[in-house]
Amino acid sequence: MSASDGYAARLHAACAEKRSAVCVGIDPRFEMLPTEFTSGRTDSNASRAEAFELWARELLDVIAPFAPVVKPQSAFFEMLGAPGVAALEKTIAAARERGLLVILDAKRGDIGSTADAYAKAHLADGGADALTVNAYLGRDTLAPFVERCRDGGKGIYVLVKTSNPGSADFQDVAVADGGLVRDRVAGAVAALGAETPCDAGDWCAVGAVVGATYPAELAELRAKMPHAPLLIQRYGAQGGGAEDCRAGFGDDGLGAVVNSSRGITFAFQKGDHAERFGDADWRGSVEEAASTMRDALNTVRACPEA
Amino acid sequence: MSASDGYAARLHAACAEKRSAVCVGIDPRFEMLPTEFTSGRTDSNASRAEAFELWARELLDVIAPFAPVVKPQSAFFEMLGAPGVAALEKTIAAARERGLLVILDAKRGDIGSTADAYAKAHLADGGADALTVNAYLGRDTLAPFVERCRDGGKGIYVLVKTSNPGSADFQDVAVADGGLVRDRVAGAVAALGAETPCDAGDWCAVGAVVGATYPAELAELRAKMPHAPLLIQRYGAQGGGAEDCRAGFGDDGLGAVVNSSRGITFAFQKGDHAERFGDADWRGSVEEAASTMRDALNTVRACPEA
Repeated sequence: MSASDGYAARLHAACAEKRSAVCVGIDPRFEMLPTEFTSGRTDSNASRAEAFELWARELLDVIAPFAPVVKPQSAFFEMLGAPGVAALEKTIAAARERGLLVILDAKRGDIGSTADAYAKAHLADGGADALTVNAYLGRDTLAPFVERCRDGGKGIYVLVKTSNPGSADFQDVAVADGGLVRDRVAGAVAALGAETPCDAGDWCAVGAVVGATYPAELAELRAKMPHAPLLIQRYGAQGGGAEDCRAGFGDDGLGAVVNSSRGITFAFQKGDHAERFGDADWRGSVEEAASTMRDALNTVRACPEA
Repeated sequence: MSASDGYAARLHAACAEKRSAVCVGIDPRFEMLPTEFTSGRTDSNASRAEAFELWARELLDVIAPFAPVVKPQSAFFEMLGAPGVAALEKTIAAARERGLLVILDAKRGDIGSTADAYAKAHLADGGADALTVNAYLGRDTLAPFVERCRDGGKGIYVLVKTSNPGSADFQDVAVADGGLVRDRVAGAVAALGAETPCDAGDWCAVGAVVGATYPAELAELRAKMPHAPLLIQRYGAQGGGAEDCRAGFGDDGLGAVVNSSRGITFAFQKGDHAERFGDADWRGSVEEAASTMRDALNTVRACPEA
């Protein structure tokens, strides 16, 4: 599997190799990091960014056996300004060095040459493998991103139905000639995907972000976008469990990855894990949380061999 | 007028003082900058970012008499990675030092604590005065930004109707129980604005991005959001002229700023300006383009005294 393959081919090869559909969200919050990283690093954005980078690199080592893909959240890095963005770049590079695919969660979207600038900024050769994007501005604004999918082996995940309580406000508005606004966006996802390279299972490079909090909607959206890789969000405590993700996978067990961020990376701070692992053995906590999630997801999907 | 005033009060004081509703977009494209900045700076992102920063600072000196507000476009800075983001931060600081307000055009939007991170990242004390945001994810996702408007003297401009050809795809979809999707977003803008500080003219801190390419729509949206400051985009060559912006202003001549980016900053490269000014006198070209636009807009709005 080489970088010249399409995004879905690379993603699914990694899912098969690791027998996993887990995506680990990398959302660094300084006050939640294990103390080995934060100690003595509170004085500036530069030193906080150093903590982010060191933590992320160690985290990647721990999760690499369990997850084909990671999803750094740009917002938390941007909070530290330019040093934070430098830490994000290094985190993306470190993930790729470890053979992990990277979905950069930045939810970008703009018009004309500005969209083109975002595509070049965040789907550069050697950078992230995929990017989350917002389609509200129109189908034409996705063109530069789709071009990177077609010619650069990249992927995108278009926001279709998010997991927050207010997601209904605009996404679920009933349209005069049938369906909901999110169905219109899903239609664009399906149409644009047809312009991108598909893998052997007919999965293409334009995917969709959907929440695990609404399993019935997940099944509907899966049907409307039969070739789109899904990024399923809000797994765990406040969202859905493995069963709620079942409808996201194709019959081949592929076509979706399920994200968990704090539920894996900061599991050591809560409940049972706080007692059994705690700050000192955060690595053990992450390993257990990631492998438990992997196994749970593998009970609701066919699990193809590498 | 102090920083503790609401955004609209600060914006309108600046508009009155300069007798101008011009917003100058700062969209650095390396290959379009005057050669005095690019010469010898092609070898790395760091040196290109240095060109951006030096150019932006000189540009700010030239436009400060003509424009109350500038709008740096984050995408072009992000293209250069961390050094580009550092140049953006310095550009924002330089604008504020010169008494210019800053609308950061980054079109951010995310859910829960991630939205909060974006609000903290881009509407920090000492940072940009206002931010463009995307509401597709739902009204609840705007809350952290509105909080910064309420408590931090900041403003936001929600994307309502953009100026690109594909803007109709989702923004203009007819809703089953009346109106268009963009009207729903406009309704949220109006409702959220009521939670923020208003100036003496009853303009509040939650504004909207609308295109100048659709004057009839501009009048409609103005009526639906009677207290929202508008950021009118795509003025000039490929968009609307001053007449097309008329409906954006309130009876008091306030409530809107009109953006031009390349039409001012890179005017020296085109037509008449290329001959009369050219690369060597790009400052003269910017001055003339900015003052011409200011004067044109002042013919379609009441022009309150400072």
